[in-house]
Amino acid sequence: MNKQKYAIGLDFGTESGRALLVDVADGREVASAVHPYRDGVIDQVLPGADVELPQDFALQNPADYIEVLRVTIPTVLRKAGVDVQDVIGVGTDFTACTMLPVDRAGTPLCQKAEWRDNPHAWVKLWKHHAAQPEAHRLNEIARERGEGWLQRYGGKISSEWLFPKIWETLNKAPEVYHAADRYLEAADWIVLQMTGQERRNSCTAGYKALWHKREGYPDDEFFAALDPRLRDVVDAKLSRQIYSLGQRAGGLTPAMAELTGLRPGIAVSIGHLDAHISVPAATIVEPGRMVIIMGTSNCHMVLSTDEHLVPGMCGVVEDGIIPGLFGYEAGQSCVGDHFAWFVRNCAPAAYQEEARSRAINLHQLVEEKSARQQPGEHGLLALDWWNGNRSVLMDADLSGMLVGATLSTKAEDVYRALIEATAYGTRMIIDTFAKSSVAVNEIVACGGLPERNKLLMQIYADVTGREMRVSAAQQTAALGAAMFGAVAAGRAAGGYDSIVQAAPRMARLKDEVYRPITAHTAMYDQIYAEYARLHDYFGRDGNDVMKRLKALKTGAQPGA
Amino acid sequence: MNKQKYAIGLDFGTESGRALLVDVADGREVASAVHPYRDGVIDQVLPGADVELPQDFALQNPADYIEVLRVTIPTVLRKAGVDVQDVIGVGTDFTACTMLPVDRAGTPLCQKAEWRDNPHAWVKLWKHHAAQPEAHRLNEIARERGEGWLQRYGGKISSEWLFPKIWETLNKAPEVYHAADRYLEAADWIVLQMTGQERRNSCTAGYKALWHKREGYPDDEFFAALDPRLRDVVDAKLSRQIYSLGQRAGGLTPAMAELTGLRPGIAVSIGHLDAHISVPAATIVEPGRMVIIMGTSNCHMVLSTDEHLVPGMCGVVEDGIIPGLFGYEAGQSCVGDHFAWFVRNCAPAAYQEEARSRAINLHQLVEEKSARQQPGEHGLLALDWWNGNRSVLMDADLSGMLVGATLSTKAEDVYRALIEATAYGTRMIIDTFAKSSVAVNEIVACGGLPERNKLLMQIYADVTGREMRVSAAQQTAALGAAMFGAVAAGRAAGGYDSIVQAAPRMARLKDEVYRPITAHTAMYDQIYAEYARLHDYFGRDGNDVMKRLKALKTGAQPGA
Repeated sequence: MNKQKYAIGLDFGTESGRALLVDVADGREVASAVHPYRDGVIDQVLPGADVELPQDFALQNPADYIEVLRVTIPTVLRKAGVDVQDVIGVGTDFTACTMLPVDRAGTPLCQKAEWRDNPHAWVKLWKHHAAQPEAHRLNEIARERGEGWLQRYGGKISSEWLFPKIWETLNKAPEVYHAADRYLEAADWIVLQMTGQERRNSCTAGYKALWHKREGYPDDEFFAALDPRLRDVVDAKLSRQIYSLGQRAGGLTPAMAELTGLRPGIAVSIGHLDAHISVPAATIVEPGRMVIIMGTSNCHMVLSTDEHLVPGMCGVVEDGIIPGLFGYEAGQSCVGDHFAWFVRNCAPAAYQEEARSRAINLHQLVEEKSARQQPGEHGLLALDWWNGNRSVLMDADLSGMLVGATLSTKAEDVYRALIEATAYGTRMIIDTFAKSSVAVNEIVACGGLPERNKLLMQIYADVTGREMRVSAAQQTAALGAAMFGAVAAGRAAGGYDSIVQAAPRMARLKDEVYRPITAHTAMYDQIYAEYARLHDYFGRDGNDVMKRLKALKTGAQPGA
Repeated sequence: MNKQKYAIGLDFGTESGRALLVDVADGREVASAVHPYRDGVIDQVLPGADVELPQDFALQNPADYIEVLRVTIPTVLRKAGVDVQDVIGVGTDFTACTMLPVDRAGTPLCQKAEWRDNPHAWVKLWKHHAAQPEAHRLNEIARERGEGWLQRYGGKISSEWLFPKIWETLNKAPEVYHAADRYLEAADWIVLQMTGQERRNSCTAGYKALWHKREGYPDDEFFAALDPRLRDVVDAKLSRQIYSLGQRAGGLTPAMAELTGLRPGIAVSIGHLDAHISVPAATIVEPGRMVIIMGTSNCHMVLSTDEHLVPGMCGVVEDGIIPGLFGYEAGQSCVGDHFAWFVRNCAPAAYQEEARSRAINLHQLVEEKSARQQPGEHGLLALDWWNGNRSVLMDADLSGMLVGATLSTKAEDVYRALIEATAYGTRMIIDTFAKSSVAVNEIVACGGLPERNKLLMQIYADVTGREMRVSAAQQTAALGAAMFGAVAAGRAAGGYDSIVQAAPRMARLKDEVYRPITAHTAMYDQIYAEYARLHDYFGRDGNDVMKRLKALKTGAQPGA
């Protein structure tokens, strides 16, 4: 048996970056370190300048990403006390679409004196929402032209994605567009910095840039229909060369080795998206098992051997999650946010006092009271659209609804109804997948919520009629990145030849299983039928009252 | 000019009775006194016995009514310091249907030793709800037989009314039914006690006992269809002789004069219902002006020269409110109760602290925050059915609904939406009246809420597009009773010859007028259109989800 080997996963989030050093043999977490981005999310003023940003801007400084390497990798090496010779590979994951314009050498334009004062020269973070007009127009034109690829994205693409962001630059700062040698996802830029190799990854290309493994990008004619200047955007500003996940992007450059303390030449994997990389880290490399990342919102991912057009999904991408399979993504806009909203705005003063006297928090108290109830007992039903609906309706203008309230309704009743509503929303997604021949037999949850909220897990099991498991990893994305690092290193170097081989060794689930309780599922089946009916009534043109109320709300603003 | 004259109004409520002594010339309140019923609402155990009551029972002790006379009349005479010679008349009003079985002499059966232990021998209070099975069956049979009178009551009668309560006794305690010489409304029983005259009034007969001035009671055949033993119920246990409001029932008996300190022989008016007697006390004796008694629930009353069948109303009765006119009644089940529920269950702890630090109550704080908003600004819409819907749907199984919630929704948004929902419900009632040719041009509010809640009054004005005024009387029902006392006395004795003459002299409105603000009404017109659509969807068989959720709730109870 060889000596123990290690891999490092680098997880670039919204506010900070994290390094996780794991044992390649079993995925055990040996050390981790977090470094917050100095400039964080830039949404008011450009760093080092007095340029105020327009509304909906969310930028980042790429220098902060390099700082994460410089600070966190030496830290985990030191904390772990391992021989640097035994660190065989590095993998990365990133938020997306988080994109930037670079010059021929790969230097971000915002790091060049002549462009430093132009917001469009900086990294546009995933939640930069200023390209909404471009996204809207892009969707219109794609629909008018009957673009077939639109159906892979549920019929609508987001302002957060690559082409709206590029087009916004062309409209607002054409000089930046023209000065850019090309655009890169930050996921690919960090790999370029580490290896000197540009290796655009199939995950962000597929989920955020309309790329398809067999069909490539949309036609030049489509881009020309958006704007004649965009006709050659793919060839001029991107690349048609896309690399599948799990490959080795290259070896760590000597300069990066010096910066990080790692050996020059060790394997660095192709870039990846932070949500999607959690799938193998939650043990899933095969069809039929869904991952739900549960946090402020829910992100659902499942695999299939075939491509199906599933209505209302965020995307289906071949090689998008696991090489050789089609990865499907769906989402719910408001989950943890929902419960936080409720506890902040709707839990009565008497509960606050009770929680204080028992030295527990208000969430715990309300959950405890909710947990005493039987399914159906509170008589309430909610539509979980407090922040719009991502899947399967893809409509940000929908809003929350609650029905069944009486003078006996209590705070814990509403709280439980909100949890159940998010479970019904997940079941709607699962049922929609199933109707399109994408099976979901079991669910693995990861993220912050499943750890804290057992009631939520049991309700999801009961509502979906499926077993719920929880990923054992504390940092699922970083573990996934480390796993891909081990795969990039390959078996000969002490790693693995594929993510399918790595997953059963490096990823684990907790022992606890939430099994559907038959009587609960029978009750929830009946209530879910009511949910589905109201879902279609309010969400599918039965009654557009939610949109009209939103429009009236805008009109009613003082000064509007 | 004659010497000042006085009249006394006696208002028999649910928990207590009140005497109000007023100046006949201008209705000025000179003195008042309240006496709580010693036995209150009897819903657990019979007084002086260990007979436990079944669920939904609500009884009273008629001795408590006599005690009100004995205590309150001498008190107001003393407090007022008026010459008893100048007190010219007494009027009364009562809750209804509050009914009791009596012997030939008018003595309540419950005051006779042989019946004291039988709950059915006592006064069944208006909110005695144990006759629900009988009401249900009565409605079924009336519908099957196509009984025309059913439409005068919106197609459904309540378990609170006279015949279900009598039938319940026949089913549960036939010996009491047979022992009863007859049944009386408490409103008529108290008049019988005061005058020795049985003078059944047209208001309770019309609104609670299916009586019609021209058609009389339903046919004997109908009662026989309920139960053959009920065929002769009207002739055997009631009377077909009904007296119109405003008449003199008789003169005060010497025994009652001794008990109360009043002169024997002074005029006592026909009995009346507490809600309906508020109409002239709110200055209204003519068509076109609606009274809304606003409290825990809303009761709406309006007059017309003609009889129209208005869908979903509680009743239309000729001579039912003002002699010579048709009185229409409608209602909303949950108004003040709604706001109390909200503040108790949904106002967050931070608001409690803010209210405490400013030494105001939570209601005031939430109202203050709500009042800062423009109509439509919160983007919410509610259906005001937390306690079912009385008019115009007459369906107790409906429940509350809220739509339009987002993560920015605050407690004051929901609170304002609930106030608006009750205003939309009132507008639905007004619109339904208008469609049936019963005009409502102006609204007068009385009761506890209008005094305290200016925001509510302005919202009602804006939503209904009608001016809202507030009755000046603190005790509207008792004032109305005193007015009818002055009418019973007649002009020759220093009173009035009719309530139409009395009202402009004795009743007043506050100076404050709530006028609809054009921009607000324009916004509310749009939101009301949405309310009306959802009202029909959830309330008129578009989607019976509320009823199904209630049914599931019952099935989900632990142990069910």
